[in-house]
Amino acid sequence: MILALAGGVGGAKLARGLANVLAPDELMVVVNTGDDFEHLGMHISPEVDTVVYTVAGINDPIQGWGVAGETWGFMRALETLGGETWFRLGDRDLAVHVERTRRLRKGETLSSITSDFCERLGIRHRIVPMSDDPVPTIVHTNEGPLSFQDYFVRRRSEPVVTGLEFSGVEQARMAEAISSAASSESLAAVVICPSNPYLSISPILAVPGVRSILEHRRVPAIAVSPLVGGRALKGPAAKIMQELGKEPSSLEIARFYRGLIDVLVLDHTDVVLAESIRSLGITPVITNTIMREDEDRSDLASRVIGLARSTAITATQ
Amino acid sequence: MILALAGGVGGAKLARGLANVLAPDELMVVVNTGDDFEHLGMHISPEVDTVVYTVAGINDPIQGWGVAGETWGFMRALETLGGETWFRLGDRDLAVHVERTRRLRKGETLSSITSDFCERLGIRHRIVPMSDDPVPTIVHTNEGPLSFQDYFVRRRSEPVVTGLEFSGVEQARMAEAISSAASSESLAAVVICPSNPYLSISPILAVPGVRSILEHRRVPAIAVSPLVGGRALKGPAAKIMQELGKEPSSLEIARFYRGLIDVLVLDHTDVVLAESIRSLGITPVITNTIMREDEDRSDLASRVIGLARSTAITATQ
Repeated sequence: MILALAGGVGGAKLARGLANVLAPDELMVVVNTGDDFEHLGMHISPEVDTVVYTVAGINDPIQGWGVAGETWGFMRALETLGGETWFRLGDRDLAVHVERTRRLRKGETLSSITSDFCERLGIRHRIVPMSDDPVPTIVHTNEGPLSFQDYFVRRRSEPVVTGLEFSGVEQARMAEAISSAASSESLAAVVICPSNPYLSISPILAVPGVRSILEHRRVPAIAVSPLVGGRALKGPAAKIMQELGKEPSSLEIARFYRGLIDVLVLDHTDVVLAESIRSLGITPVITNTIMREDEDRSDLASRVIGLARSTAITATQ
Repeated sequence: MILALAGGVGGAKLARGLANVLAPDELMVVVNTGDDFEHLGMHISPEVDTVVYTVAGINDPIQGWGVAGETWGFMRALETLGGETWFRLGDRDLAVHVERTRRLRKGETLSSITSDFCERLGIRHRIVPMSDDPVPTIVHTNEGPLSFQDYFVRRRSEPVVTGLEFSGVEQARMAEAISSAASSESLAAVVICPSNPYLSISPILAVPGVRSILEHRRVPAIAVSPLVGGRALKGPAAKIMQELGKEPSSLEIARFYRGLIDVLVLDHTDVVLAESIRSLGITPVITNTIMREDEDRSDLASRVIGLARSTAITATQ
């Protein structure tokens, strides 16, 4: 079984690829919930939804979030009523937020609800929120601390990031499924998807117990760099790295994950970084990391799975 | 100024007619909130919305509730997720429920929110919920007590009604606007719209102080019968009357409002009831009470306003 850490559009695409090529019991995707927030009285889990929609194949391929073929009657009516419209909620998407909120208020966990939604959307692989406890990401910026969606959506990632805080993470309990997957005999590899390391992967690693799974791993861990030629394909990863004084490159991604991964998959474009990455004790693997079509997702996933197998053999020799 | 009591489709139509022919400061519509309920975590006020949508001219003319040109993306997605779909919520309609709920939770009153929504929908007349306190109607039936929407929507008014209860009405405070309208020098008449007397008007009359406004009125009170030829144009009024051992006719409507009204407007179809109604001390007025087109609404409203004027003159002679 592969344990994949994901969040955001790039991460969701590789999760989809892995689901395309692995049997249901061969994959568990752990998703960042640091983006979760209350909006209009609803609990919204943007990264969980992006991963669920993408793995289900019902995601909007153009905008990267929400459901394909979405309608906007709710949003237009809300605007007429003077409601808050900075966070766009499509009519179909809204059903997820309303129903999830209703079930959370009844006492169900986010994990259990997510699992049920997946089943109803025809997903047979497991998608698990990193924790059922709230761990809201606070983005410290030159304009002061901002809640994640305030920074990301309302302010379009424009403020300069000075630091990140995963509020309450010390008290958060790792989702049960993760700890049982980590200790399972069948665990074959951990995959860090090409998600924003600061905003999507760091919150997962910050949940007590998760980083240690990687530090003390007995199976190979493989990350796929979210940067191509020093740029993020989507989102503010490169911008944030610069603001935090880091070079926005796959080499810096390697440094970021040093000690946690054995292999870093990077794009052809970044072949020049291979030796520097190797000198950090991480095996660089060059391939195409840009996933335009569903086939690209499956191809990259197959490549990652192949690496997991070969790396595993190397490790046990 | 005319104070109109309303609820449901028939009541909303006359309210629209009155708004068509009266200046904004000449009309206040008081609406039943006994139907209000919590659903999917939202506060829903079905009768307030029906009146607001109808007066705004954006109501769905076919089904009698909701917004014209509605879309159903939310409902379909909710069904996929296994959510409760027995109460149909259109995408645009949903914005009203989500935004109202958000504002109620912030501590705003239903009256204040309704007033703001009206303004944003271009309504210049006042529409006032009967109370800001919850007064949920309990329908006692042969199947036991049912909450109103359980009876009305989920069970399609099929159970046999044995009684009605307006839960908590003793503690409910009449909306402030009603008491100030009632004591205003400018009050010219009270109009009871052709709404269900049991389900829409009774709850309003049960709010402490409202019945007394009618009992001690110094201005004429005119009701329009919701029944034509012993049938309700919409809804279970006739069925409930039968179940409560009453003859479903405009004569029984007159008995129901006896002591509270001076005039009962009834349809041509029911001309034979005129003398019996007169013998109760209520002036029967025969006209067309069926409002198919917007013109019919204005015509009936004009007729009612004319009666208010002539009845007032009679009273002061």
